[in-house]
Amino acid sequence: MRPFAFVPLLALGTLALTPIAVDPPQLRGFTAASSRVQREWEDKFKAIPEPARMRESMRRLAARPHHVGSVYGKDNAEWLRDQFRSYGWQAEIERFDVLFPTPKERVVELVAPTHFRASLQEPTLKEDATSGQRDEQLPTYNAYSGDGDVTAPLVYVNYGIPADYDELARHGVSVKGAIVIARYGQSWRGIKPKLAAEHGAVGCIIYSDPRDDGYQTGEAYPNGPMRPATGVQRGSVADMPTYPGDPLTPGVGATPGAKRLSLAEATTITKVPVLPISWSDAEPLLRALGGEIVPAAWRGGLGIGYHFGPGAAKVHLVVKSNWQQAPLYDVIAKLPGSDQADQWVIRGNHHDAWVNGAEDPISGLVPELEEARAMGELWKQGWRPRRTIIYAAWDGEEPGLLGSTEWVETHEAELREHAAAYINTDGNDRGFLGAQGSHALENFVTAAAQDVTDPETKMDVAKRLRLATIAGGTAEARTRADLRLDALGSGSDFTPFLQHAGVPTLNVGFAGEGDQGIYHSIYDSFHWYTTYSDTSFVYGKALSQVVGLMVMRLADADLLPFTFGNLAETAGDYAKELQSLRDRRAGEITERNTQIDEGAYAAASDPRQPTQAPPRLAAAPQLNFAPLLNAVEALKAAASRYDAAAAGATAGAGGVTLASQGNAAAQLRAANVKLLQSERAMLSPDGLPGRPWFRHMLYAPGYYTGYGVKTMPAVREAIEQGKWAEAEREIVRVADALKREATLLDEATAALRP
Amino acid sequence: MRPFAFVPLLALGTLALTPIAVDPPQLRGFTAASSRVQREWEDKFKAIPEPARMRESMRRLAARPHHVGSVYGKDNAEWLRDQFRSYGWQAEIERFDVLFPTPKERVVELVAPTHFRASLQEPTLKEDATSGQRDEQLPTYNAYSGDGDVTAPLVYVNYGIPADYDELARHGVSVKGAIVIARYGQSWRGIKPKLAAEHGAVGCIIYSDPRDDGYQTGEAYPNGPMRPATGVQRGSVADMPTYPGDPLTPGVGATPGAKRLSLAEATTITKVPVLPISWSDAEPLLRALGGEIVPAAWRGGLGIGYHFGPGAAKVHLVVKSNWQQAPLYDVIAKLPGSDQADQWVIRGNHHDAWVNGAEDPISGLVPELEEARAMGELWKQGWRPRRTIIYAAWDGEEPGLLGSTEWVETHEAELREHAAAYINTDGNDRGFLGAQGSHALENFVTAAAQDVTDPETKMDVAKRLRLATIAGGTAEARTRADLRLDALGSGSDFTPFLQHAGVPTLNVGFAGEGDQGIYHSIYDSFHWYTTYSDTSFVYGKALSQVVGLMVMRLADADLLPFTFGNLAETAGDYAKELQSLRDRRAGEITERNTQIDEGAYAAASDPRQPTQAPPRLAAAPQLNFAPLLNAVEALKAAASRYDAAAAGATAGAGGVTLASQGNAAAQLRAANVKLLQSERAMLSPDGLPGRPWFRHMLYAPGYYTGYGVKTMPAVREAIEQGKWAEAEREIVRVADALKREATLLDEATAALRP
Repeated sequence: MRPFAFVPLLALGTLALTPIAVDPPQLRGFTAASSRVQREWEDKFKAIPEPARMRESMRRLAARPHHVGSVYGKDNAEWLRDQFRSYGWQAEIERFDVLFPTPKERVVELVAPTHFRASLQEPTLKEDATSGQRDEQLPTYNAYSGDGDVTAPLVYVNYGIPADYDELARHGVSVKGAIVIARYGQSWRGIKPKLAAEHGAVGCIIYSDPRDDGYQTGEAYPNGPMRPATGVQRGSVADMPTYPGDPLTPGVGATPGAKRLSLAEATTITKVPVLPISWSDAEPLLRALGGEIVPAAWRGGLGIGYHFGPGAAKVHLVVKSNWQQAPLYDVIAKLPGSDQADQWVIRGNHHDAWVNGAEDPISGLVPELEEARAMGELWKQGWRPRRTIIYAAWDGEEPGLLGSTEWVETHEAELREHAAAYINTDGNDRGFLGAQGSHALENFVTAAAQDVTDPETKMDVAKRLRLATIAGGTAEARTRADLRLDALGSGSDFTPFLQHAGVPTLNVGFAGEGDQGIYHSIYDSFHWYTTYSDTSFVYGKALSQVVGLMVMRLADADLLPFTFGNLAETAGDYAKELQSLRDRRAGEITERNTQIDEGAYAAASDPRQPTQAPPRLAAAPQLNFAPLLNAVEALKAAASRYDAAAAGATAGAGGVTLASQGNAAAQLRAANVKLLQSERAMLSPDGLPGRPWFRHMLYAPGYYTGYGVKTMPAVREAIEQGKWAEAEREIVRVADALKREATLLDEATAALRP
Repeated sequence: MRPFAFVPLLALGTLALTPIAVDPPQLRGFTAASSRVQREWEDKFKAIPEPARMRESMRRLAARPHHVGSVYGKDNAEWLRDQFRSYGWQAEIERFDVLFPTPKERVVELVAPTHFRASLQEPTLKEDATSGQRDEQLPTYNAYSGDGDVTAPLVYVNYGIPADYDELARHGVSVKGAIVIARYGQSWRGIKPKLAAEHGAVGCIIYSDPRDDGYQTGEAYPNGPMRPATGVQRGSVADMPTYPGDPLTPGVGATPGAKRLSLAEATTITKVPVLPISWSDAEPLLRALGGEIVPAAWRGGLGIGYHFGPGAAKVHLVVKSNWQQAPLYDVIAKLPGSDQADQWVIRGNHHDAWVNGAEDPISGLVPELEEARAMGELWKQGWRPRRTIIYAAWDGEEPGLLGSTEWVETHEAELREHAAAYINTDGNDRGFLGAQGSHALENFVTAAAQDVTDPETKMDVAKRLRLATIAGGTAEARTRADLRLDALGSGSDFTPFLQHAGVPTLNVGFAGEGDQGIYHSIYDSFHWYTTYSDTSFVYGKALSQVVGLMVMRLADADLLPFTFGNLAETAGDYAKELQSLRDRRAGEITERNTQIDEGAYAAASDPRQPTQAPPRLAAAPQLNFAPLLNAVEALKAAASRYDAAAAGATAGAGGVTLASQGNAAAQLRAANVKLLQSERAMLSPDGLPGRPWFRHMLYAPGYYTGYGVKTMPAVREAIEQGKWAEAEREIVRVADALKREATLLDEATAALRP
């Protein structure tokens, strides 16, 4: 449709063989003239970020533990504020006060058939200087675990996800009244105690199995990057898929005057006590389990037979917390816009960590600082972004996206009016660009990635990603003009922006080379990062270049560079997936019930190790997908009209541009105002069934996955859970969201009409 | 087509809910009258086999080690002969003399970076009386390993199958000049040293990983059925996919006067020394390996990180054998036929073991004895089988199907003229009927399985298998009239009958409940079997009933009960698979070459742990499948005509039977003589490319799988290996085999024409 954007992508194979010097393509959303100017600023920008500065910033920020409420966390926030100021930005700290429990009492002990008490300690390593800062380290724990002191039989539940409980039931193993031990992985950790409690368990232990991030996957730290025997993954277990942020202030900012729930009213605190442990602490518990050997997919990397339990195994678990309020220090820095100052481009990365957090989150924060420094330099050279740029360093991401959520909730009305986009980063490593987010930004991401060089292969970042995607088996990447963005679930600060406030959002970072097993442990340190990850910060530099270009383009574009054809295509794909999902579920249910009737489960069962038939399910009705399919068609048509109008509006020399029509500025302004609402149009004020905080009708973290996204979640989860009437109702609500989007796009198109 | 056979199967679901008393269906191949008589004998037969006798026979036969050449092996053979005689059979021992190496020197030692010498011992267990018979036990070794004394770096090759060597190449790891260590599983063990040698290795160690049959899969012996730390799997590593039997007498019986190859000429002896070890002996070797961590699918159940090697790991491996001749004692027992004595129904199970062999092979042999005893009883009551029944207890199966192969090679001319069918059993356990073999026997197997009761569920054996197959995800089992037989690869004494001599063949046994890890170790004992397997011998009884009915029906039928519609259908399925295989390979090759051209492999490679692109392959041409597809159509038509004619010939009261036409006996005789050749018609005298001993054009063990079958092997393996011209030639040869079969069926049909 718009050759200037598509040529280099469609011709990828050819270009790879016969590179030819060409003028860089006109930037989407810019006229030929403004694109040339923009590219000059971008070239200057890209030269500025320095790996050496990132290394020194990481050394400083990760020098001491800096969790929520810590001395060094506040110190970091103030240092960050001052850094932004030194770059020429307006920077302030915005404070919130949130519920932040810290451990008062922690016990895991095997009381039968033998006695063993878990150390619950991560030992100091002489190779890693910061690992010995015992006085400042948070102990190993799961924040927002409910208090409890329980003694009960122990049952192994694999990853503790829904399918695992189905498997337990098939084997006749109940967790009612038991303490479960689950391994980390396959879900947001908060899902594990939630499901355990739903199934009647009274406690939950989560451990790191060496098959998942320990010695079976690579050398253990300090000899390699993987989790050592005593490494523990801390982390929040709040029920984030219900709502993130301060458990006491759902939906509103945790400001001094905010109305707060009582602790008992806070639904996101776990119903049962939870503690994380290392595999060296877990092994004696697992060895004590009786019962049958677990299925092959449940077997971990310890040199033992894994059993369901309980047999004689009985465990005593105590978790008690100090349920205090803690201050959050969000650092908010601004570069004011010029003629479109009331449109905000926001970019953030958190600064709090569980302990020293060199990788998580500092490796994503130090590129952000370098972007800010570079933009400060450009400012000094005369660059003036059209839109206001806001750079944030969030506090309290680790316990539950606290800093970003409270900020979004506090500023929601402003964001509704002003927010153009939010770009998030978190830990950054090596390898391939990962980008997920709003599908109107696929073309935009592709273009930025094409303009940055991968430090290892020297090809552009988009090309490397595209080729690696092909090598990974997705041949579509060979011909599709734009890179595909995966949809966003949760797990970092993008969630409140996208899923609560409806801001077009991206989450960006490099990853895919080298594994890591220091996540949320004291070993996530400067020594670890500079020994095993992006040791020379070349991917830190690449990240600052990719994100910096994105921010500058969003800030400077004449017309916001959104394209809606990809969004409409993706929505159509989701609708098809939902139809297939219904049909597949219907088939599975029919097959299951038939097998129950004909006695197939009974016939297949070994009387010495009997398995139970799964429960009979109600047959799946047909669903009326017509409203959704019609809405997709309407959106496709509107998107096609808009994308053509936008391309025409900014067409280069010889094309018909708004500028040649007279009141171009007013028309672009009117279109931009509409585009600003293009993600908001897909929110529903009532939110998702049972979790109204989540309002986006296209994207949400799964209620039983936590990190993993469910697209068109209200319909998808209703189908998965067999709530057929709800599914049919929600189809209409999703369709309405798409129709609102189509209407809005037509209004934007009208604004651009010459 | 023939309601008497199909009714109970098609109406399965209904019958399950509303069982009604019906006359048993008329037996295929019998007239209404002869079927009634036959069923009376069968009812008598089924009442005779006794679990208590099987237990006592197992106790005696497994009381001492009884491998080839052992004192107790000969004693067992004589006892077996005498048992048959006591049942009223004519029984003799038929002796052959074969090459049978036994260990002279065995060393596995780690010589760098540290020193460790493998014990190569299986300790005595106080719980298991026969485990202490050290003087008579064969040491742990792999028979037909080449002699060698090598010291070389050690490389881990996972299961040591072709895909594993592709993976090694991707990671830049070469085994040239190295000793490989492979884990047991995923292939016939002889494939591992063969492939290692093909890739330049100088030695091969095979160990039992606890993830495959040790503690990760169940409790270890003596606390459970799985392999203990020091358990070792002995076994042959002769290149059986080239030819089984005595390595010195390929294609001819190892009789006193036979021409024998020299040791150097015997192509089935491994090119490199091989030894099997336990995981407790393997663990220090695996721990010593350097290099990268292996991919997830390569990781075993030891509590270590698995590495490719070699790093500093160096191993000294010595294997030297006594290359002596040993006597084989096949026990051959006969019940003479009456009016069709020149047609032979053969049934066998081996009697030799690696050590005590309670499960392998005695658990399959003791039901055979009970069948023979029962038939002897019937004989005394007046039963006279029409055809001659031959019961065999083979010697030397373990080292390489020696006893069966030499017997088949010796009697090949007679078998060509007389053999109607061969039914094999080997170890028997618990659970579900497993039956593989000639597809003309699918309906026959189904009918026999319907007439035997499963001891655990009390439903008939066919129904339980059918329901379990449905529960396993194969919904087709709900509607297909006959059970499906898997095709036979190799691994037991059926191979010479089916794949060399073209005798219609079945391999039958119960399995699927309970795992085992004592295979080929000293712990395969009476104590193990009676503690963990078919402890009350109820499945031994069921096996004797299923196989006994099969033998009696084959022996007594007026018309051999073969149906060819299923054979033709299956041949058609194979032809379709081959077309898909070509297309898939063609697509994979194109995709691979494209990715090499566009640099996708290079782009996906991590420079810190680089991976190599796989080698470019020649593009796959289209193949002319028309001859094969035409032959399938011809076979389908001929099969349809024959099956209708056969059903008509034996139709019951009111139908047109041969008997009503006058010379029925002569016509049936003529048809039977044709049917006797119906499997032989699919042999090709030239055999498969590169391995002429294997003559069947439909079934063979894979050249690189060993146990696993390759159907239409000459075509399939040519496609897999990219030998496109060979594939096109072999399509014609397979088509010719099917056309011969079609012609033969038309001749049989003509013989039955009223």
